[in-house]
Amino acid sequence: MSAPVFLPPASYEYTRVQRVTGAERREADDILAAEEPLEIRLGYGPAGQREQRTLAVTMRTPGHDLELAAGFLLTEGLIRSRADLTGLLHCPDVQKPEERENVVRAELATAAALDLPRLERHFYTSSSCGVCGKTSIAAVHAAACPVLPADGPLVPAAVIHELPERQRQAQAGFEQTGGLHAAALFSPAGELLLLREDVGRHNALDKLIGAALLADELPLSRHVLLVSGRASFELVQKAAVAGIAVLAAVGAPSSLAVQAAQDFGLTLLGFVRQQRYNIYAHPWRVQGVNE
Amino acid sequence: MSAPVFLPPASYEYTRVQRVTGAERREADDILAAEEPLEIRLGYGPAGQREQRTLAVTMRTPGHDLELAAGFLLTEGLIRSRADLTGLLHCPDVQKPEERENVVRAELATAAALDLPRLERHFYTSSSCGVCGKTSIAAVHAAACPVLPADGPLVPAAVIHELPERQRQAQAGFEQTGGLHAAALFSPAGELLLLREDVGRHNALDKLIGAALLADELPLSRHVLLVSGRASFELVQKAAVAGIAVLAAVGAPSSLAVQAAQDFGLTLLGFVRQQRYNIYAHPWRVQGVNE
Repeated sequence: MSAPVFLPPASYEYTRVQRVTGAERREADDILAAEEPLEIRLGYGPAGQREQRTLAVTMRTPGHDLELAAGFLLTEGLIRSRADLTGLLHCPDVQKPEERENVVRAELATAAALDLPRLERHFYTSSSCGVCGKTSIAAVHAAACPVLPADGPLVPAAVIHELPERQRQAQAGFEQTGGLHAAALFSPAGELLLLREDVGRHNALDKLIGAALLADELPLSRHVLLVSGRASFELVQKAAVAGIAVLAAVGAPSSLAVQAAQDFGLTLLGFVRQQRYNIYAHPWRVQGVNE
Repeated sequence: MSAPVFLPPASYEYTRVQRVTGAERREADDILAAEEPLEIRLGYGPAGQREQRTLAVTMRTPGHDLELAAGFLLTEGLIRSRADLTGLLHCPDVQKPEERENVVRAELATAAALDLPRLERHFYTSSSCGVCGKTSIAAVHAAACPVLPADGPLVPAAVIHELPERQRQAQAGFEQTGGLHAAALFSPAGELLLLREDVGRHNALDKLIGAALLADELPLSRHVLLVSGRASFELVQKAAVAGIAVLAAVGAPSSLAVQAAQDFGLTLLGFVRQQRYNIYAHPWRVQGVNE
């Protein structure tokens, strides 16, 4: 696993603000987390008859765009492995130069089965494939989830307490802007392996999973994932697709996140901060706490 | 404007957790913010030839679903006013009873112009309509934005400091779960008028705007909006479509949120907490601070 990589300059923008403290105001410089649309296009079909279509546009922080696209394709079930992807680049044929950095084209292997009806459904349903929580969970199960390991990873309870501070120290973008979510991957001993940031927490996780996919390091079944915000169903889904068995969130989980974690066999922790946390599902992977 | 309304019982779920504090763990009861998919369907076309199609599925906290659907239709540019909407109900024709609460059908007036190509584009582009920030802002401008008032509302700087605590006191769902975003509407004197909660911050705002739309209280151009999280482009867009001229966020704004606020004429405040905040755009609406 590569070392954590930080955000490029395009991830920030500079601005002037008025800072109000009590009844006083003064002009000051400020740094903002950049937000721009990213269009993800698919190239697909047999040689000589390649077609192109737009898959999605997501509002993201520029930087690690190819990883974001790769991770999105995997966690949304469009590809199953690195081998389904034969190319990935910023589109050279976009005419307006200011838009070129915001369009990524992913070439699918001719052998990759592109389920077009599923693709259509995808636009209707975002990350859900049914109209009740149970259906949504079942759809993820059926589509793309690897079986999570039944014997680990085992994580010392004390290591969990240390993760938020380690993430925070490495989170350059948040320090500067206060506006970036992070997804961070740790070893079970608490070593930070990879960190990605974005204005969208789902994008931060897709960037991280995409980086692992492109480095051929999936599944991430021997690692621990920490996310800076809340744990929604979507984040549990993405983690499970990447084979991550321990997901810790600084914020609260939702009901459907807990239910999905229970069903998928994923250990889910919430409110991980200040030497406390709650375990919502599969607590056996957390070791060394007194009853 | 009606008084704040709190979430119904379906917005919560009960669970058992293991609470870890330092090296100790114990079993405890816990309350989760509910998350379930909501499918929004459109009925449209001339009398006798009505058609139906699915517009979107959003993961939301159950409660105020009709308001959510109405607000979503307005802020995404599918309808322009209350008059475009002739009906709104939980679908009685959904077969599985557990899914019925998760499907809402909106009837568009026969006279309402439904821009189907725009609708298609909508699925591709989420809340964006271009692949660079400028295009996204221009698209919102062109589509649906009322002109924000050039003479107000004027808000005393001291009132802004009080808003987060007033929101927090009224936010029943957050108190219980720690997992719900809120959007709250205040008078310029700081009186709380309306509050909505959801696991998704965009949904909380759509619920609030939908409630105002259904009560025929749009535009909200004499009010102040506070959101519990960060200010993204999407939140600025939705606020502007509802005619809201002052948007205050407890968290950070993104670069595109600031640029959009500057272009739309919207006063944008960020990091509103602990007697401090930053003003990112159109500071003239904040009154009574010493230079």
